Amino acid sequence: MKTMPSERIYNFSAGPSMLPLPVLEQAAAEMTNYRGSGMSVMEMSHRSKVYLSIFEETKADLKRIMKIPDTHEIIFMQGGATLQFSAVPMNLIGKTGKADYAVTGNFSSLAMKEAQKYGQINIAFTSEDRNHTYIPAQDELDLSADASYFYYCTNNTIYGTEWKYIPETGDVPLVCDMSSDIMSVPVDVSKYGLIYAGVQKNMAPAGMAVVIIDKTLAGHEHPLTPKLLSYQLMIDADSMHNTPPCYTLYILGLVLKWLDTQGGVEGMARIKANKAKIIYDVLDDSKMFVGCADKAARSDMNVTFRTISKELDDKFVKESIMAGFENLKGHRKVGGMRASIYNAMPTEGAESLAAFMREFEMNNL
Amino acid sequence: MKTMPSERIYNFSAGPSMLPLPVLEQAAAEMTNYRGSGMSVMEMSHRSKVYLSIFEETKADLKRIMKIPDTHEIIFMQGGATLQFSAVPMNLIGKTGKADYAVTGNFSSLAMKEAQKYGQINIAFTSEDRNHTYIPAQDELDLSADASYFYYCTNNTIYGTEWKYIPETGDVPLVCDMSSDIMSVPVDVSKYGLIYAGVQKNMAPAGMAVVIIDKTLAGHEHPLTPKLLSYQLMIDADSMHNTPPCYTLYILGLVLKWLDTQGGVEGMARIKANKAKIIYDVLDDSKMFVGCADKAARSDMNVTFRTISKELDDKFVKESIMAGFENLKGHRKVGGMRASIYNAMPTEGAESLAAFMREFEMNNL
Repeated sequence: MKTMPSERIYNFSAGPSMLPLPVLEQAAAEMTNYRGSGMSVMEMSHRSKVYLSIFEETKADLKRIMKIPDTHEIIFMQGGATLQFSAVPMNLIGKTGKADYAVTGNFSSLAMKEAQKYGQINIAFTSEDRNHTYIPAQDELDLSADASYFYYCTNNTIYGTEWKYIPETGDVPLVCDMSSDIMSVPVDVSKYGLIYAGVQKNMAPAGMAVVIIDKTLAGHEHPLTPKLLSYQLMIDADSMHNTPPCYTLYILGLVLKWLDTQGGVEGMARIKANKAKIIYDVLDDSKMFVGCADKAARSDMNVTFRTISKELDDKFVKESIMAGFENLKGHRKVGGMRASIYNAMPTEGAESLAAFMREFEMNNL
Repeated sequence: MKTMPSERIYNFSAGPSMLPLPVLEQAAAEMTNYRGSGMSVMEMSHRSKVYLSIFEETKADLKRIMKIPDTHEIIFMQGGATLQFSAVPMNLIGKTGKADYAVTGNFSSLAMKEAQKYGQINIAFTSEDRNHTYIPAQDELDLSADASYFYYCTNNTIYGTEWKYIPETGDVPLVCDMSSDIMSVPVDVSKYGLIYAGVQKNMAPAGMAVVIIDKTLAGHEHPLTPKLLSYQLMIDADSMHNTPPCYTLYILGLVLKWLDTQGGVEGMARIKANKAKIIYDVLDDSKMFVGCADKAARSDMNVTFRTISKELDDKFVKESIMAGFENLKGHRKVGGMRASIYNAMPTEGAESLAAFMREFEMNNL
């Protein structure tokens, strides 16, 4: 029952995750000789004219597609989102020595714990009491006027929740981990002091983070900050103090070109809302499946759900694999199932999964 | 005069640099569907069975090929060699607060400056007086008995020199940057406390460093060390505390398989000595070309040379590009030319360059 061309499967992995097939095909075609250069992109000096044109076009496309204002700079860093858990406080907490963290999932919790090494952390909210199945309302946030920044994570990959609003924090800059929903919806970047994302969900293969920073926030890092973690140094060097992850950046460039064919982030927002609805409609109509997250907080990127029993969950996962779906098993912190439907998951993938779920319910209820 | 198949050129870049053509061809063939998995390696969950088998085989192959003893652990980290400039002192200097650095080129100088943020640095030697054209003898090293470690860089990419011996430092652990000659020659790993290498010269595309560490040295990092820079955490998590640069690791795996076909590091050592001799013989016979480094310190990986005039240097570089050779222009700190002939440069590349040099001399002297 594998339904995709050339034996490709529907891969619902939470990350690394699917990339658009045209991107992979182009990368394969250009692998031994990039557009007549006689080299693979992997082999190019990062200071060469041919590579710099890839780099600059990628950066310009990202700026255009995300409508990043001139007040903000784009930085490409290695180490994924996790290294940003350290870089954010090392660079930004020095202003007052304090920061506010909203803990609504696993990664904001890890970020908060790492930040405690570098300053005094106020937990502005935690949804731990109900296993991170919900998102606080604005008036539930315990905000500090003297925080150097307010930190949150828009989309909680493991729990399947997402913030539906941008927190109001007055003069305190917003710092946001958008690893699992970046480029899936238009974002008013000007409202943020800093946005970052590990690229391995919606942007590129694993091995890089994109940081978008209000330039006025850089330049105040802790003296012991490793130099590659200094936002100011990375701004000054245009992300090329040392060799960047050149090939990962090239794939990001191809993904951005593909995003244009989908109508950019505006097009992506329509497509993702539709894909999520296709699966959530099954949950809402079902006597067997139930969503793990509160309805008001449901994520359009990661659909977490379960059946009425552990046995049926296991059976579902097992049969889904035989049917050509991969990585539907939920994270152990939630159990049940999870379908990650990032930008590169085709609508047909969501439709096939929905059909499979309905059939499974019919056969097993 | 392009001489390689399918319009490939001879790319003498100092890094990122050539990869073996069979590696690129295999990567292209497996791009959209890795061995029947229905996925690209770029798309795989790093915790999946199919990816873990790639990871484990790569690690095992590296251990076997480099004969890494069980006392040492292999860590894959992001950030290239430059992030190790910080990670090394943050993890290791705490023992005594002091370290010895031998400065024999650009990268050991940068590493030394970064280490000064974390402790007291004794410059055990610097070859700056003669623009890093030579390597000190053992008895020229100013060693401290209370150093936490002794740091050096085996091969100086920009200057074209290499250490021909392993320094004797008694009980002080050796820390070595082998970015530009790793896997080009057998190394007695047991003599080292820590070896690291940015992968973009002899191992894989840019975006990763391989760290080989004596396990007894880990676990003493500075309390402000970003967690991803903790060697102990990376050992405990087997390099998977967060998503590793999965695709880069996969290409490293393919490079290791290719290395086996070349006779491993023993075979590579013979091939590289021969390649270097082919070019150095031209210098030694020439009335026009002269090597930049002292003969006793010449690197087999980076051949630095110049002609008798700046004008002829420029002409040489210009004509070399027209002849299908890329990136022969020397680094601005040395001038002249540089031919980087890492593992993946075919012997025919060195032969073609040598023939071109002889012809250029004939036509221009």
